[in-house]
Amino acid sequence: MLAGAAAVGVTAPALAGLTAAAAPVAAAQQGKTRRITMYAEELPGGDIGYGLTPGGATVPGPVLEMWEGDTLEIDLVNNTDKRLSIHPHGVDYSTDSDGSPLNDSFNEPGERRRYVWRTREPFRKDGVWLPGSAGYWHYHDHAMGTDHGTQGLIRGLYGALIVRRKGDVLPDRQFTVVFQGMTINNKMAPHAPLLEARLGERVEFIAIGHGDFFHTFHLHAHRWADNRTGLLSGPNDPTPVVDNKDLNPGSSFGFQVVAGEGVGAGAWMYHCHVQNHSDTGMAGVFLVRNADGSMPAGAQEALDRYYGHNHPHH
Amino acid sequence: MLAGAAAVGVTAPALAGLTAAAAPVAAAQQGKTRRITMYAEELPGGDIGYGLTPGGATVPGPVLEMWEGDTLEIDLVNNTDKRLSIHPHGVDYSTDSDGSPLNDSFNEPGERRRYVWRTREPFRKDGVWLPGSAGYWHYHDHAMGTDHGTQGLIRGLYGALIVRRKGDVLPDRQFTVVFQGMTINNKMAPHAPLLEARLGERVEFIAIGHGDFFHTFHLHAHRWADNRTGLLSGPNDPTPVVDNKDLNPGSSFGFQVVAGEGVGAGAWMYHCHVQNHSDTGMAGVFLVRNADGSMPAGAQEALDRYYGHNHPHH
Amino acid sequence: MLAGAAAVGVTAPALAGLTAAAAPVAAAQQGKTRRITMYAEELPGGDIGYGLTPGGATVPGPVLEMWEGDTLEIDLVNNTDKRLSIHPHGVDYSTDSDGSPLNDSFNEPGERRRYVWRTREPFRKDGVWLPGSAGYWHYHDHAMGTDHGTQGLIRGLYGALIVRRKGDVLPDRQFTVVFQGMTINNKMAPHAPLLEARLGERVEFIAIGHGDFFHTFHLHAHRWADNRTGLLSGPNDPTPVVDNKDLNPGSSFGFQVVAGEGVGAGAWMYHCHVQNHSDTGMAGVFLVRNADGSMPAGAQEALDRYYGHNHPHH
Repeated sequence: MLAGAAAVGVTAPALAGLTAAAAPVAAAQQGKTRRITMYAEELPGGDIGYGLTPGGATVPGPVLEMWEGDTLEIDLVNNTDKRLSIHPHGVDYSTDSDGSPLNDSFNEPGERRRYVWRTREPFRKDGVWLPGSAGYWHYHDHAMGTDHGTQGLIRGLYGALIVRRKGDVLPDRQFTVVFQGMTINNKMAPHAPLLEARLGERVEFIAIGHGDFFHTFHLHAHRWADNRTGLLSGPNDPTPVVDNKDLNPGSSFGFQVVAGEGVGAGAWMYHCHVQNHSDTGMAGVFLVRNADGSMPAGAQEALDRYYGHNHPHH
Repeated sequence: MLAGAAAVGVTAPALAGLTAAAAPVAAAQQGKTRRITMYAEELPGGDIGYGLTPGGATVPGPVLEMWEGDTLEIDLVNNTDKRLSIHPHGVDYSTDSDGSPLNDSFNEPGERRRYVWRTREPFRKDGVWLPGSAGYWHYHDHAMGTDHGTQGLIRGLYGALIVRRKGDVLPDRQFTVVFQGMTINNKMAPHAPLLEARLGERVEFIAIGHGDFFHTFHLHAHRWADNRTGLLSGPNDPTPVVDNKDLNPGSSFGFQVVAGEGVGAGAWMYHCHVQNHSDTGMAGVFLVRNADGSMPAGAQEALDRYYGHNHPHH
Repeated sequence: MLAGAAAVGVTAPALAGLTAAAAPVAAAQQGKTRRITMYAEELPGGDIGYGLTPGGATVPGPVLEMWEGDTLEIDLVNNTDKRLSIHPHGVDYSTDSDGSPLNDSFNEPGERRRYVWRTREPFRKDGVWLPGSAGYWHYHDHAMGTDHGTQGLIRGLYGALIVRRKGDVLPDRQFTVVFQGMTINNKMAPHAPLLEARLGERVEFIAIGHGDFFHTFHLHAHRWADNRTGLLSGPNDPTPVVDNKDLNPGSSFGFQVVAGEGVGAGAWMYHCHVQNHSDTGMAGVFLVRNADGSMPAGAQEALDRYYGHNHPHH
């Protein structure tokens, strides 16, 4: 499906157990201004998340999507007892939407505050082409605990932000994977997100890094072009193709793969490739079901092993 | 030399002292299936390596090469007393060739087991171009010690895997350089691999990262384009040119340089650019001999310094 | 302003308080040989810097610029009591200009020694295009303290080296930002460099990593293409656009932004995005003044916060 003029929500999760990300916010039309309200709230177990409804906070927060040219106005409601904010990567904002204490741009406990994010297409100026806004970006707190939001990040105040360019291909399904500290989306194996898709679906990954540690993201049996979209412009495109990529604090990337293409359905691991990180829990399963949604041979056994035995071998 | 239809082994090491990599496996013709047997065996000093013959194991293992479209069937024989496997990056494989305990895909001690790797050219699907398999990849154990093969990697179960695209240029000589833990190919200075070539030869480096530490690979007096091949598509190619690149666990890259081009023969260092890593032994010599194979002025003195004095200065 | 045949110094710092880098050395004409003298000298507080005049050393050292095809001859004078050298990235040099003890290429205390750096355009050889020298590179000591110059780097012997290609756009202003150890240009907040420009100026950043730690460089409200120049070749250029990038030992990159473009004047943070690095001082301010040089609303308050309160929140 190609992105059209009247784009709507890009995914419609249909499988039970889709746990990695909340449903994405429907993308607005290019050049339009959209207003949403987000809520920062405490969750059971000590996490704090962003959500689109009161009581709807998740870790990571919802996938926010824009088209180049769009403006997004976010009314952030702080339902916690600590100061916090929302700071985006990749988009344009004035200092009062910076989300940083440096610019006095944050929500006090209980406060509602508006943040405005703008985007643009690549444009020519003074003889050169300046970048547009399209990319796999992210948003996060920049105020809780320290002036850089260190406590907010540890507790889960982060999410994916996608800015698409006219003509970009939309996925059937999408997953946000955040390497935060020594966790994946604040979880560790065997509780890391189970990412489920069906054979042949176009699956979009948005990978984000946060915290103090350095990581490498590896996906078994699938690979992508290391460029803006993860796809090639043609057969002679010199872009490196990778299946393992640095995923370090503040960075993000995204890509689309066709689930199981050339390799079949099955339980495919995704994990940090730093050995003591994967061994201690930074590993999960990308479950590619058969096209009809049924479990492929061997997959249940693999999940059983993951849930029961994903520990060092004795 | 351009890759032709009946490609054969790409290098013919002719210099004494070529120590960095075993001779590469001859590339098969495009679209063909080739079968090899590999042996995992213990080596003196505690290392464990892969080899193409019984008693022929090395660290790193042999360079395996394929053309896009080829299939490689590997019968792996485990001649150790521990479970192990072979897991590839960059190619297509079914879950039973995953090489992971998650998918019950490994060799018990003494077991022979087949792993099948497939490759493909870039292809168009649903209006987009999906990546092919060409790249500088690698293979490694994914089962010894932990479910991620941590002990196998520490002991040397890793090697380079190159998938070439029709038209790719073949090198005169190639070197595998693996930053594993705080070692280079499980060695430290002054025992790091001596990489030898002659002035003007086309030399291919395959750089691979493994273990728990993060590194940067630096080569003196030579540089490369940071893309799939290390070469430019033309004079206006905007690819960044680098001589220092992150080399982190699970990642790999490769490139070709013309030995001594523009700088002359000599003893050129390659090393991790993290200061306490190079200071403690992650440094070796890329010895570019004269075109006739003789030693260039000053090179023997440099080697003597490397072997005798590569320690912190007092 | 496009680079012309008779290029001169590319920046003319006009604002008071421009502290991040010394004035760059005027670029020579393409194909020309230029000779300069540099002095390595101790500075108050224990730093050691490179300078273009006796008593003129700075940390980082001066920005050195060349055009592809140029040769730069540097007579380095060591006015310290320790051995040291100058080792470049990205350019061509013979072993006697390697700057390494391995090649007996360094200055003893008090010694004057010549280092010669050559550059070239991309060129075709044996059917392939080999990289030229253009890039955002750097130079540094490779001899003080250890054979890799570890002590020299800690004390400040580093600087930016830019090699430009014919047609490259020149900036109005440029800043060298070196993440060395846990510092920025050997400083920590609130003493990190204040980078000042005016709204609409073309600002060039040269980012360099050194030492033992890994970092990510983040700039608020501005972004760049992750290629050789930071600019796009056109609206369909697939290069990823980033505002956060790994900046690790021995690596460097550069880019140009239009100060405040689309976001306005203000006090914009730049910082390492590793949380405990920014929290402990790896953060500074990119102050975009109004076009007439006056302070934008809120910017003084932001600076006051930076100077007084850039510490963990209680």
